[in-house]
Amino acid sequence: MADESEAARSEVADRREQEVEFNRIVAFSDGVFAIAITLLVLALDVPERAEDLAHSLTDQEDDFFAYALSFAVLGNLWLSHHRFFGTLERFDGRLMGINLFYLAWVALVPFSSEVLGDYSSQSDAVIVYALNMIGVSLAFAWQLLHADRHGLIKQRYLESDRREAAPMNLAVAAIFAISIPIALIDPTTATLSWLAIFVLGRVRAFRRSRRDSPQPG
Amino acid sequence: MADESEAARSEVADRREQEVEFNRIVAFSDGVFAIAITLLVLALDVPERAEDLAHSLTDQEDDFFAYALSFAVLGNLWLSHHRFFGTLERFDGRLMGINLFYLAWVALVPFSSEVLGDYSSQSDAVIVYALNMIGVSLAFAWQLLHADRHGLIKQRYLESDRREAAPMNLAVAAIFAISIPIALIDPTTATLSWLAIFVLGRVRAFRRSRRDSPQPG
Amino acid sequence: MADESEAARSEVADRREQEVEFNRIVAFSDGVFAIAITLLVLALDVPERAEDLAHSLTDQEDDFFAYALSFAVLGNLWLSHHRFFGTLERFDGRLMGINLFYLAWVALVPFSSEVLGDYSSQSDAVIVYALNMIGVSLAFAWQLLHADRHGLIKQRYLESDRREAAPMNLAVAAIFAISIPIALIDPTTATLSWLAIFVLGRVRAFRRSRRDSPQPG
Amino acid sequence: MADESEAARSEVADRREQEVEFNRIVAFSDGVFAIAITLLVLALDVPERAEDLAHSLTDQEDDFFAYALSFAVLGNLWLSHHRFFGTLERFDGRLMGINLFYLAWVALVPFSSEVLGDYSSQSDAVIVYALNMIGVSLAFAWQLLHADRHGLIKQRYLESDRREAAPMNLAVAAIFAISIPIALIDPTTATLSWLAIFVLGRVRAFRRSRRDSPQPG
Repeated sequence: MADESEAARSEVADRREQEVEFNRIVAFSDGVFAIAITLLVLALDVPERAEDLAHSLTDQEDDFFAYALSFAVLGNLWLSHHRFFGTLERFDGRLMGINLFYLAWVALVPFSSEVLGDYSSQSDAVIVYALNMIGVSLAFAWQLLHADRHGLIKQRYLESDRREAAPMNLAVAAIFAISIPIALIDPTTATLSWLAIFVLGRVRAFRRSRRDSPQPG
Repeated sequence: MADESEAARSEVADRREQEVEFNRIVAFSDGVFAIAITLLVLALDVPERAEDLAHSLTDQEDDFFAYALSFAVLGNLWLSHHRFFGTLERFDGRLMGINLFYLAWVALVPFSSEVLGDYSSQSDAVIVYALNMIGVSLAFAWQLLHADRHGLIKQRYLESDRREAAPMNLAVAAIFAISIPIALIDPTTATLSWLAIFVLGRVRAFRRSRRDSPQPG
Repeated sequence: MADESEAARSEVADRREQEVEFNRIVAFSDGVFAIAITLLVLALDVPERAEDLAHSLTDQEDDFFAYALSFAVLGNLWLSHHRFFGTLERFDGRLMGINLFYLAWVALVPFSSEVLGDYSSQSDAVIVYALNMIGVSLAFAWQLLHADRHGLIKQRYLESDRREAAPMNLAVAAIFAISIPIALIDPTTATLSWLAIFVLGRVRAFRRSRRDSPQPG
Repeated sequence: MADESEAARSEVADRREQEVEFNRIVAFSDGVFAIAITLLVLALDVPERAEDLAHSLTDQEDDFFAYALSFAVLGNLWLSHHRFFGTLERFDGRLMGINLFYLAWVALVPFSSEVLGDYSSQSDAVIVYALNMIGVSLAFAWQLLHADRHGLIKQRYLESDRREAAPMNLAVAAIFAISIPIALIDPTTATLSWLAIFVLGRVRAFRRSRRDSPQPG
């Protein structure tokens, strides 16, 4: 640790350049998130014949559900990514590599989402979505772990990150993993089981808000 | 209020980080807007057979109308969002959540726009578009209200925002809500009734320009 | 002019906010350009049957030509936009509106480009592309003119802008306008006539480089 | 060189503007990369019939391979571009032109990737992908060479860049060039031969990490 702060001091000259680099990684990641989240709309099919407009729109309720679900999922992933990068003191080449690997899973969501929307009653579609989510969660947990092990996280965030962020992501991966055998029996139950994640997220947000709220002075 | 400025002072150390976070949210929102507005072009169909090129292009006049309308709509939504975020003093987690909810409605516009362009003479298509716009307007009004109630808006903008921005958005939602029963009778009249919003916008822009223009000193 | 610098001084307090706003407009415009330029690739069709892969790829040479042309066109439009925004001292609401109008024409290019690529031998396709370019050029000339008339341009750029930028855009619009009657007679000749723009651009770049290059001191 | 630093000093006043310009080029390039990398997902086909869901998903293994390959390729290209722009002291109009030419090859990757994914067993598809990669590599080498010759690179990066970056890109182009005749005989072997690039990249990353790692003080 001492050596590292030693090195950090000698890097002061490069500080501004480093920041430009850091901002580019952040902007690139944000770009991928923003594009992936906006591409979700392409999964909604505009009916091809005029007669069945109303019918074919209401027929797409599963597509709209998948759109809402995936928007919420990508939005929350982005918020977590956002929060994680806010806790970083420094970054290294490996973290950039893992981040790219993570983004590859993120950019896959519009595909899995379309599969889920079109075939929500089939086990296979639910499994495809769950696998994508497991990929995202594990890749993100890898980032967190790497950052923790290589001292890239700002001192004051270390505690809360270790206690919360990494376990949270593993819990999410676990919920999706459990939903796979459930999907083989009943796809709808499997989809509903994902709600456990939003409950988890809510608990975490509540804890966070209580911790961060200003104490009347 | 006193407590809050108390807290604000204690947050000075985090100021720069906060700004990075804030800029990321703004950049992400801008990204979604920019992508959604550029995806509108995908609703224009390139004719599949050479013989009917001129015919099928002029046949698409409704698609071009929907493109122009939605570009104007998304452009103006972006300007409003832009202006709103310019009035923010601080932001909180909940505002980020509402913002995501709002963006989900924004990112849906390319779909509704394509439906409208392809079936502009059908009540259902007009209703789909109107519902999307009501979703956008209410979600935006929610953002404004939340920001107002939790003291996130800069003091000097408070007055004009309360007097103008939130009512404006509710008025827009009302116009679209009224156009739904009209669409059931006559879709074209319903579409024309939306012009009321541009009139509203023009009035507001005029007031704003008169207020903001420099007085000769 | 005196009044304006008077007003400018009184705006110093808002300077930083203004800059954030300005950067957002620039970033949004860049986003639209970047997305439109990258969507060009969607006009290239991946063959649907394996047998005719080589044949159908070489058969698409017009599509590849349209891709290269439109990439060059959008790239150069972006460079001009970029340069123009670099000369701005301030901006007003109207400029933002004209800029959105301009971007609506820019975002249309992927459509016109696909039409051109698929039907390059037809007059109608060439005319569609030319009309799009006329729209872009006039909208841009409008921006330049507005900025000039309302004193939004930095003093030292005024001269060169008046002498070069606006006439350049009108010249481009004129070349495309002339190509429309030519297209009715021979589409290929019309397409070739557009080369005049690149010649114009080269002349301008040459003049610029000679003016900007450092004099040996 | 003396003249240039002379000129650089006289440009100090424009420094901040130049930086805005530079940041815009970087942001634009990042945008193109982010969009191209996220568009890769559009090459994955959502099955059109429910019966063959599982079958048609596993049938797409080549598409998933192409997705992973192209994500890695574009990600690494972006990292290189990122690194290159970090070494720039200044830029000129010509570099911006070459950069656009380079981005035109980058934005083509989603197309080549879809062709490869759909027809990985055919020589032509492998050749299309290889040609795209040669275009990317040569355009990037051109950027590096131009920047080197016109003194745009920061002094302290000159050495390592000359020794590593340009030769690396020519080596990549060579590997893809060699894979073309191989593809005519056996497409799979040609695809596997590309692994040589990742080996090259790994060697370079290793050298870089050894050079950059802080020495215990």
